[in-house]
Amino acid sequence: MMGDASTVVPDYLRGLAAAHPGVVEYDPEHRIVVRRAPVRAGKVGLISGGGSGCEPLHAGYVGLGMLDAACPGEVFSSPVPNQIMAATQRADHGAGVLYIIKNFGGEVMNFGLAAEILRRKGIRIEKVLVNDDTSFPPELAGRRRGLGATVLVEKIAGAAAEEGRPLDDVAALARRVVEHSRTFGVALSSCTNPRTGRRTFELPDGEYEVGVGIGGDRGHERRPLPPVDEIADVMLDRITVELRSQPGDRVLVLLSGLGSTPAIELYGLFAAVADRLGKHGVEPVRSLVGDYITSLDSHGALLTVLRADDELLELWDRPVHTPSLRWGA
Amino acid sequence: MMGDASTVVPDYLRGLAAAHPGVVEYDPEHRIVVRRAPVRAGKVGLISGGGSGCEPLHAGYVGLGMLDAACPGEVFSSPVPNQIMAATQRADHGAGVLYIIKNFGGEVMNFGLAAEILRRKGIRIEKVLVNDDTSFPPELAGRRRGLGATVLVEKIAGAAAEEGRPLDDVAALARRVVEHSRTFGVALSSCTNPRTGRRTFELPDGEYEVGVGIGGDRGHERRPLPPVDEIADVMLDRITVELRSQPGDRVLVLLSGLGSTPAIELYGLFAAVADRLGKHGVEPVRSLVGDYITSLDSHGALLTVLRADDELLELWDRPVHTPSLRWGA
Repeated sequence: MMGDASTVVPDYLRGLAAAHPGVVEYDPEHRIVVRRAPVRAGKVGLISGGGSGCEPLHAGYVGLGMLDAACPGEVFSSPVPNQIMAATQRADHGAGVLYIIKNFGGEVMNFGLAAEILRRKGIRIEKVLVNDDTSFPPELAGRRRGLGATVLVEKIAGAAAEEGRPLDDVAALARRVVEHSRTFGVALSSCTNPRTGRRTFELPDGEYEVGVGIGGDRGHERRPLPPVDEIADVMLDRITVELRSQPGDRVLVLLSGLGSTPAIELYGLFAAVADRLGKHGVEPVRSLVGDYITSLDSHGALLTVLRADDELLELWDRPVHTPSLRWGA
Repeated sequence: MMGDASTVVPDYLRGLAAAHPGVVEYDPEHRIVVRRAPVRAGKVGLISGGGSGCEPLHAGYVGLGMLDAACPGEVFSSPVPNQIMAATQRADHGAGVLYIIKNFGGEVMNFGLAAEILRRKGIRIEKVLVNDDTSFPPELAGRRRGLGATVLVEKIAGAAAEEGRPLDDVAALARRVVEHSRTFGVALSSCTNPRTGRRTFELPDGEYEVGVGIGGDRGHERRPLPPVDEIADVMLDRITVELRSQPGDRVLVLLSGLGSTPAIELYGLFAAVADRLGKHGVEPVRSLVGDYITSLDSHGALLTVLRADDELLELWDRPVHTPSLRWGA
């Protein structure tokens, strides 16, 4: 890698702030990233955090219309409670703070600890658990990881907070996004561990892992790589069943590369996904295709589908200005 | 790869249009991508094109405030004259068309042929040659490839065309961007050829190629990988000499990953670049860090620096809405 594996996270954060000085600020003492755009009094604060290596999650989504602060852990390690508490104090503008927590053990524990301590100090905190990973069956819902829906929650709840909605409303909306979102991931390679320079697992040519998450973890099963329309079927099968998709449904589709998937390949997969949705009369009315939640240099994709309605779409379309998601501003 | 190597380009283009239906249209007969946003009469048309595998170049930059049409070739192969002629006819709104041509033999030849034929039919065509590659010394200027400056030319000339400037002005502005831009690239790996599934060249761990371009081609030299601040020096040394950088200069910095460079690594390199510029009193007043010009899944980066002035910055900041670059709209 270019750079020093032992300082890769602070070096990244310093670069992020240098590249987007009007958008985010880096607090090296607490290792958090904080929004620079002016915040009006009474705005609910939104924070999230997680292991580094999954960029733009979460620091790339700090700014107008999304997060107030992000807490990056070491590579593939959860942030610690001190980071989360520092971020909460920066994000609290008097109307309380929403924690957006991906369902990984360390995140759940450390955000939970921070919330417990700070609530005693009088800060209002609500938590939303993101667990959109559909690769585990519903009876193993506890193991469902937080994946692409995190981006959608951050954007949609961020827009609601920006317009001044109260904490309970923003939290309810965030939970609605989670409830209506599902994600399924596949990978053709693992990622390179920055410390060792080695891949976290090896996958032979012509095979792929089904049901992967982020963080370099294995999927549930290894299979021969089929044509792309069958990959789209594998990814969509459970998603559409669980979302109870009906002809006429409007959906927001996020197809994220895992880090090294060429754009020509990712958009080719999107074409197959759109074909399959179209056959069922489901229309992707908004789409994001690119590296929006990654796993270092893994080769693969996460497909997230949100069953949308007018309110969610309207909030999705609101202006956003962060390092990695920007429009209308 | 996910998908069929023999149809990867049309599958990509179909997916691009499906994901951004209000922004771009795909014409499969001529294999071109055309802007959907309404164009006012008398707007100069902008087109570009090149080998696929370097996305978002160029189809990802079609839309309001950038290109009117793009002609994607096969992977790492130039577009053919028929594509370019079809794109020109779609992009001509009566005020002429600017060809933005990267300095690769096939592109120069085929855009030149198309221009020759269409000028005889009465279409006004101007050409700008992008050759910002600073890895070749000035005496080999003819071999300097078109790299990151292409993105800057497309954005800045696109904004000028959008406001209704005449063809000569838009072309002069595009040439000014080229003149004031320099790029230097490094790579830690080549890319995977979609047809063979093999890397185009092998690079041992702990070494890097200095002076790479796009398209999987080798650099000028292979060296042991130094600490990141020395990589920044290697990239900036020639750039700052050629741009005659002075304390007080304002620059626009584009640091593009080549396809599989993790964001944490790329931003770490950006921090080193910003440090070095700062030491010389040069301020990066605008920055783009991410995959903006790539080479499939290569690991590495292209650093582009534009010596900016008020006019260029003002045009840079204008609204843009394309699949891969968007703000203010």
